[in-house]
Amino acid sequence: MGEKKEEVIILGIDPGTRITGYGIIEKLKGELRYLSHGEIKSPNDSPLSIRLKLLFDSLMAVVNKWQPQALVIEDIFYGKNVKSLIIQGHARGAVLLIAPFNNIPVYEYSPLEIKKAVVGYGRAEKKQVQQMVKTILNLSKAAPPDASDALAAAICHAHYQKMEFL
Amino acid sequence: MGEKKEEVIILGIDPGTRITGYGIIEKLKGELRYLSHGEIKSPNDSPLSIRLKLLFDSLMAVVNKWQPQALVIEDIFYGKNVKSLIIQGHARGAVLLIAPFNNIPVYEYSPLEIKKAVVGYGRAEKKQVQQMVKTILNLSKAAPPDASDALAAAICHAHYQKMEFL
Repeated sequence: MGEKKEEVIILGIDPGTRITGYGIIEKLKGELRYLSHGEIKSPNDSPLSIRLKLLFDSLMAVVNKWQPQALVIEDIFYGKNVKSLIIQGHARGAVLLIAPFNNIPVYEYSPLEIKKAVVGYGRAEKKQVQQMVKTILNLSKAAPPDASDALAAAICHAHYQKMEFL
Repeated sequence: MGEKKEEVIILGIDPGTRITGYGIIEKLKGELRYLSHGEIKSPNDSPLSIRLKLLFDSLMAVVNKWQPQALVIEDIFYGKNVKSLIIQGHARGAVLLIAPFNNIPVYEYSPLEIKKAVVGYGRAEKKQVQQMVKTILNLSKAAPPDASDALAAAICHAHYQKMEFL
């Protein structure tokens, strides 16, 4: 009675206008448990506004099903070309809206923080992240790249539980 | 009977995470009529996700009130720094969602096209655009910059009525 409820369901999202990965884990008394992951793919020939709506609706359904208490996304990595960064910005805009729509706080971590939390050092390669996510969460096989990155973000938050909001 | 309904209400939007301008005009038998304009301002100290939600909700209210049949936004102008372009991308993502939420098509014009349509040449300055919008729409006083840009985008669409979707 009066105890702090320790269970927390964390939704990690790796946003993109073509493929958005998501991953859901649960942190229960310090233990991590894998719940779900998936990729939301948008048809290439659809207008951007329609792709964003598909992304938004799909993530709303995920939130509705799993009722996460935290939404975690990776900070933008500036090493890409400007055009793809801007497009990614559009996807992130749609993804971020999910949080206030469901009264969930947003947490943001840099790619470096996420890799450090999952692999142990910040310059790890995508494959290593994928492998470590599989190991940490006891997955029977590795999740696809975007879903793996989303799970990695969720794991990172489970470790740090940063209190900053985006 | 069977005649094409010529009236069209056009919503122009100039997206930003701090200030988003919007403007609404009506095209009736080739004539333009001013209906409304405004600026949606977000508190600087709110998290980005909350600012995007405020923007989204405010624009949904505008659409609900005016029932536009077209949503027009300016294409991104690449002459800014990458960080502000990405942030603008987030705002555009939230704005674009408004369209499928209300079954409205999206039209996009370049800054050059908009200036050409409103002032007559593509290199016009912001002040000139503001002045011409005031003149074209018979406003008693010039609209603030962001609302003016939004009205200019709407005017541009009234002239061209491009059939491309974003």
